[in-house]
Formats: sequence, structure tokens, C-alpha cells
Amino acid sequence: MIGGIELGGTKCIVAVANNPLDIIEKKVIPTRDPKSTISDIVSFFNNFKISSLGVGSFGPLVINSESDDYGLLVAESKKGWKGVNIVEELSNINSNIILDTDVNAAALGEYRYGAGKLSETLVYVTVGTGIGVGILLDGRPHIGNFHLEIGHMLIPNSDNFRGVCEIHDNCWEGLASGPSMQTRWGIEASKLSESHEAWVKEADLLAIGLVNIISNHSPDKIILGGGVMNQKHLFPILRLKVKEIWNSYTPLDSLSQLISEPGLEDNSGIVGSLSLTL
Amino acid sequence: MIGGIELGGTKCIVAVANNPLDIIEKKVIPTRDPKSTISDIVSFFNNFKISSLGVGSFGPLVINSESDDYGLLVAESKKGWKGVNIVEELSNINSNIILDTDVNAAALGEYRYGAGKLSETLVYVTVGTGIGVGILLDGRPHIGNFHLEIGHMLIPNSDNFRGVCEIHDNCWEGLASGPSMQTRWGIEASKLSESHEAWVKEADLLAIGLVNIISNHSPDKIILGGGVMNQKHLFPILRLKVKEIWNSYTPLDSLSQLISEPGLEDNSGIVGSLSLTL
Repeated sequence: MIGGIELGGTKCIVAVANNPLDIIEKKVIPTRDPKSTISDIVSFFNNFKISSLGVGSFGPLVINSESDDYGLLVAESKKGWKGVNIVEELSNINSNIILDTDVNAAALGEYRYGAGKLSETLVYVTVGTGIGVGILLDGRPHIGNFHLEIGHMLIPNSDNFRGVCEIHDNCWEGLASGPSMQTRWGIEASKLSESHEAWVKEADLLAIGLVNIISNHSPDKIILGGGVMNQKHLFPILRLKVKEIWNSYTPLDSLSQLISEPGLEDNSGIVGSLSLTL
Repeated sequence: MIGGIELGGTKCIVAVANNPLDIIEKKVIPTRDPKSTISDIVSFFNNFKISSLGVGSFGPLVINSESDDYGLLVAESKKGWKGVNIVEELSNINSNIILDTDVNAAALGEYRYGAGKLSETLVYVTVGTGIGVGILLDGRPHIGNFHLEIGHMLIPNSDNFRGVCEIHDNCWEGLASGPSMQTRWGIEASKLSESHEAWVKEADLLAIGLVNIISNHSPDKIILGGGVMNQKHLFPILRLKVKEIWNSYTPLDSLSQLISEPGLEDNSGIVGSLSLTL
């Protein structure tokens, strides 16, 4: 039996499984302060004997397993969590922990079992509480020196709205995440009707970020998940806008092939976290 | 003996060498229309017997050697060159041609012999007639599906200047290349005094692009070359601005280590093109 944790800023999904697609038990735990959240996570696994534990976590955090700080959250992206070492805190569950970012884990889930099969340059984007991006090159995460933080790239904004990112104001996450929509329109994104102008603006901002990802990585597949992307009507607008902005500068595959919904629906993250153990 | 060609939008450098650092003869040919430029290139090599030919070329072009279109320039980034097949045109010189983008070649030169030795995630940026970026991961180019076109990512611009890119207007290249400086200030960049406000604006725009590269690739080394970067006073301002914008979100190496001048001065491109043959 293997264990998996998808540790997100809003909620945490824990699971035990025979293999990533054959989950035996799964639970959703709200992410609060580190102490009570981790205590709930540890309790869940007390009932199971697992051989290894895959963890996909929000960041930024140290994912280099050779570092003394392996597992350390280095910024206050979630209040109260800066300085917490995820690997240390979870070591009571199992000593064999494989840690990656939540978005690299989700990308891995989609690569193995979802919409990203055989993709050589696979991008997984989550648009929700924040914007995060995981990239797999031939199935292996593109990590660089620390890890990617593509949600924090700076993008143009055509109006005077001030983005909600506490670190960078008008980065992609600051301008186009769920909370930024709520601030901009004064109402939770999920409560906006499909015909609200908010969605065209949101598609604009998301398309600019995707064009920057195309220019930076030339992917053959971009999968978009997360709460905001549950608004499926965003996908066709997004494809049109990406095509319009890129302006045929280099050849792109058919946009409906290139820009895709997740194949695992809401399970990319937990299936991917379980896959980290393989 | 090996041959190398650095085919740029303004000039073309051709060379024969015993090895990339031991150049026997070198010549600079102005890049004009395809026919006369290629004729000059072929003439140069007529006098030498080479075993293989490395070509670093401006793009966008097909660099997948398994494609039927290997060598094809797919956009009019240089007037008159769209539709030219570089590999076909040069095949009379030698049948063993190894083609890559000019910036991947320059990155390779710096990785093997210059400021990028041992860098695991190496970024080479040229800022001149255009802005181009080559990235090596453990010494191998990050190509993706087509190749990267990071000069064409969209960046914020704080004033009403309209960028000069004919494809995307306000992309990084449109806002911060040499020609955009000339349009903005009405005078060639190389003729602006060091104290001119143009350089602070230029550093601003370059820093935004570098922050986006950091968020997209988490590099351990960014080397900046090209005509505009011959203004060495840009480097300290650039480092300060990158630090300011990134705002310690993730740990960065010392900025003077991270953001560096080329180790091969103006020879990164031709040394790298010769290195493609190895």
C-alpha cells in the first residue's frame, strides 16, 4: 500500500492506495494552521501501513532532497506556514517520503494517467487560490535551481486594478487568481454568471500568461485545472485569445489539442502525489 | 578542421577551426538578402576542407533534424528570409550540418568555455537587433516542441510607448531591443550617454524579462550578451532591479553570480556554433 498527500493552501487531500488509480481510502482535510492540519494528516495515516508516501505540496519550498532544508517552506504564501518543514513534520508517518510541488505532482498524474500521456513538454497550470505551474520534460519535472514559480511572472494589465499578490502585486497570480477575481468584481468567482464580463477579462489575463509559457517552453500540451478552471466555458475563449496574441509567429498544434482540460478531473493532484512513490 | 556559422539578422560570422577555441580563419559577412549572403558564406568555405559544419541561426526556424522542413525559416523576422531553408542552402559546403538557434549555440559556447561552465540551468540572453534567449539544462538545449521564443513574451510597460515588434507590438523584444530604444529616444542606443535616462528605463524593462525567466526556469546563471549589453553599466542597475522586483520570494544566489557578462565576450555565438560539431 502507498500513501499520498496533496497539500494545498485551502484543502489537503490524503489517500492510501494499491496504485495511483486504485485508491482505497481518501479524505479531505481543510488546511488551517500547521499544527492542527498536520495532526489531522498524521491521524489519517495511523490506520494504515504504507511502504512510502508521496507528497505534493504548495510552496515555495525546498524540494532538493540533498539539501539540509529538504521540505522547508521558505515564504509566507500561506499564513503561519513559513519555516515549517513538511518532510520533518510528516516523518512520523513514514520515513520514505518523496516530496514535490503540488503542480509537479498534478502534472505527473496527468502525464501517467490523464490528458498528458506521451507529452514531451507538458505544462500543468492550476488557477485557484493562487496560480501554479508544473512542467514535465519527457516525464521529468523541470525544477531548475530551486523550483519554478511561473504564477509569479509579471504580465501586462490593461486597466488600473492592483493585483492581490502580497509579494509582487501585479504578477499573473496577483491579477488572475480566484482571490483577484473576487477583489476585482466584489463577488466570489464561482458565483459570477457565465455571461458576466469578468470571464472575458479573466480569459485575457490567462491567455497572456499562456502565451508567455508558450514562448518560454514551447509545450505540446497545456492542461488547466483548479477551481477557476471548473468554469469550462473559459476554455474556448482562452484558445481564441492565445491564437490571436501569438499571431502565428511559430507554428502551434491545433489549439484544442494544445490547451486541454485535465483527464483526471479534480484528481490530478492526489493521483500524481501517489505516483511520486513509483 | 571544423566549420562554424553564426547567422545573425545583422551580420554573419563564418569560421574554420581546429577546435572551437582555436580558430584558423574568421570572416564577418553583412546579412543582406538570402541569395547574396549565402553566396558569400559558401565562397568563404570553398577554400577549406571541413569535416562538419555547426550553424547557429536566427529564427524562428525548424531545428528538429527529423522534420522534412529541417532548416526552414518560418517567419519574416528578417525581411526576405521567410521560406528559406538554411540547411538546404548550405548543403553544398558540407553534408554534415548541425543546426541550432543562434542563442542555443551561444549558450553552448558559454557552457563549454565561458561564464556558464557547470551551470545546470543556464540562460543566455542576447539584447541587440532583437531579444533572443537560449537555455541549456545540464548542457542540453531546452527546445520543447518547436524552440523557445522568450524574446516574444509579453511584459508590462508603464508608459504609452508602442513596442516595435511587428508581430506582437509590446513583447519583450518590442519594448527593450536596440531598435525599440532607437524608436523611443530618437537616437541609436550606442550613441546615448551613460547618464541618459534611457538606460534606467532599459534596465527596468530588461529586469522584468529576467524576473519572468527566473520564475519560468529558476536558473543558476543568466549570461547577457549582444550589442545593447556592451553597455556594461547596465549590469549593476539590472541586478538591483531584479532583486527589488523578485522581493526575496524564493532564494536567489548572489545576484553578481546569477547575472553575468559573457566569458567569451563577442565570441559566444561563433565558438558555440563551432561547438555544435563536437
